[in-house]
Amino acid sequence: MAQTHILSIGTALPGPPIDNPALCKRIGAQPEWIDLFVGTRTRHFSVDFETGEQTHTLADLAASAARQALTRADVDPGEVGFLVLGTATPDYLMPTTANLVADTLGLNQIPTFQLQSGCSGAIAAFEVGARMLDEDRRIGLVLGGDRCFKHLPLDRDTSSAMSPSELINFVLFGDGAGAAVLSLDPDGAQLQITSLINQFRGLGRERGQLVNWFGTADRHLDLPGLQEDYKAIEKWVPELSKEVLSALLQTAGVAREDLDFLLPPQLSGRMTERIVQHMGPAANCKEISVVADTGNTSNALPFLQLDELVQTIRPGENAAVVAIESSKWIEGGMMVEAVA
Amino acid sequence: MAQTHILSIGTALPGPPIDNPALCKRIGAQPEWIDLFVGTRTRHFSVDFETGEQTHTLADLAASAARQALTRADVDPGEVGFLVLGTATPDYLMPTTANLVADTLGLNQIPTFQLQSGCSGAIAAFEVGARMLDEDRRIGLVLGGDRCFKHLPLDRDTSSAMSPSELINFVLFGDGAGAAVLSLDPDGAQLQITSLINQFRGLGRERGQLVNWFGTADRHLDLPGLQEDYKAIEKWVPELSKEVLSALLQTAGVAREDLDFLLPPQLSGRMTERIVQHMGPAANCKEISVVADTGNTSNALPFLQLDELVQTIRPGENAAVVAIESSKWIEGGMMVEAVA
Repeated sequence: MAQTHILSIGTALPGPPIDNPALCKRIGAQPEWIDLFVGTRTRHFSVDFETGEQTHTLADLAASAARQALTRADVDPGEVGFLVLGTATPDYLMPTTANLVADTLGLNQIPTFQLQSGCSGAIAAFEVGARMLDEDRRIGLVLGGDRCFKHLPLDRDTSSAMSPSELINFVLFGDGAGAAVLSLDPDGAQLQITSLINQFRGLGRERGQLVNWFGTADRHLDLPGLQEDYKAIEKWVPELSKEVLSALLQTAGVAREDLDFLLPPQLSGRMTERIVQHMGPAANCKEISVVADTGNTSNALPFLQLDELVQTIRPGENAAVVAIESSKWIEGGMMVEAVA
Repeated sequence: MAQTHILSIGTALPGPPIDNPALCKRIGAQPEWIDLFVGTRTRHFSVDFETGEQTHTLADLAASAARQALTRADVDPGEVGFLVLGTATPDYLMPTTANLVADTLGLNQIPTFQLQSGCSGAIAAFEVGARMLDEDRRIGLVLGGDRCFKHLPLDRDTSSAMSPSELINFVLFGDGAGAAVLSLDPDGAQLQITSLINQFRGLGRERGQLVNWFGTADRHLDLPGLQEDYKAIEKWVPELSKEVLSALLQTAGVAREDLDFLLPPQLSGRMTERIVQHMGPAANCKEISVVADTGNTSNALPFLQLDELVQTIRPGENAAVVAIESSKWIEGGMMVEAVA
């Protein structure tokens, strides 16, 4: 992997934050229950929450995040040598959202990739991006985002019949996108990637999530679109998070007590507390979590955390980003260091 | 990009070939029309064509192709350092088919990527694979495949009402998967990749295809799953094919009259004839096409063609593989040379 620098981060969240009272009024649940057991205060949805009409596509959100990142890095779209997008909820199966974003940004004649990916997709996209950097492609765009709302049945009559498993998805998820400008060169960089782990850990392990898609032939109204096994997720995410943090520290040659910032996985506010406790950072390590304000935005989350990080990290300080894909288990993480 | 060698190719086609009379009996069309205008004789579907029951998942097909490639290369799954799968029709949105295949093959603790991709996905997967090869990961698996049948409405009452645009999809597509074992080292290699082009060409260009997916929230029974603009495809695929072949020859430093084999895009038998004519290979260049026997298997097709190539190419001879993504236009191609 070539030396990889992050010149800038950009993010996009659709519409106003929707708080728990507003959410509960719409879906028929109790706000106190969310505060107590979930710990997510607000989230953003790419629909008008009153009318149910779509306000943003994933391509809109990703292009918006990319533009912000390019502006912040003072990089012209013409300098972009490749584009990689990680998502679990593309706008269509074809064309890819990656290519719709490329068209919107005015990019052409560059490689574009869309990684079908769960929560660790941002790390996978950083890996592919880092591998794509070379003498001919010294700058590239790495994106991640999700419109989780595509799985939330707001258009159904939800006045009485929503099951707890449907309610919990409304409460946990949010929509958003993020972007990073990668560069082979350190000039103007905010961060340098010092180690990256992105590996399948699902051999023989039970599935944590199943997301179906239906197309022309049969819409299978009898089958659910989204199934989560939150027991499996509660069991494995803390374990894999701990494993990947240890491996990252070892690979980067950083002692646990010398880790300055931890950007942990973000299923929910409460769950993040449990995961961080299990990962066991030293007392002086500062946590950067955004999930209480944004909900779980899946492939966007590490970018939202990195956006907070770059505003507070000082030259020479380091940070570990960890994300776990919980449908068939990928552990993802990277160590970054602030460039002097 | 590191030196990239192809140790072996593996392929998988489900069930028996379905010929035009058998197809037409089931969908209510005229075989003569297919022979005349389309030129596809048989295809394979991952369903029992009589009962409509699914016989293979894409993961089944991809794992089968991967096993064949590993056996042919005499490579143990434990030596595989990464897995990349290109597909437009994953079994689920999550888990990815790439990870289901990794589990089936007994792989673990390696990076796995699934590229959401149209017909050029095999080339994109070769590019990511080539970029992933390094001192620590000297061998990896590149896969491509599609279950196009997911878009064909065999379960509907098709006795009278199937529109021409529905019929044509039945006639054009087929299911299949392919695999290649990549290696940094030339030992035991069949082919070496000498140049590769994989670039977005969709800036401002009209869409050739739209493939929708529907999940939990709304199955949108009023919207089509698959829409093809065959006029746009007929217009642009020959143009882009010609462009990418010229660029490949130039990059590899090979004169047109020195090209030994051409593996062209494969929408249909007739369409392939027109594309090849437009690409203008020299008279001594041999064409390898499989579409008349397999239909358009999308991400699997270049592997099916490469599988024929390795049985006939002689040391020192070269070949150009070209594939065009026609939803938002990616031109993909690579030059390979037979290893002495």
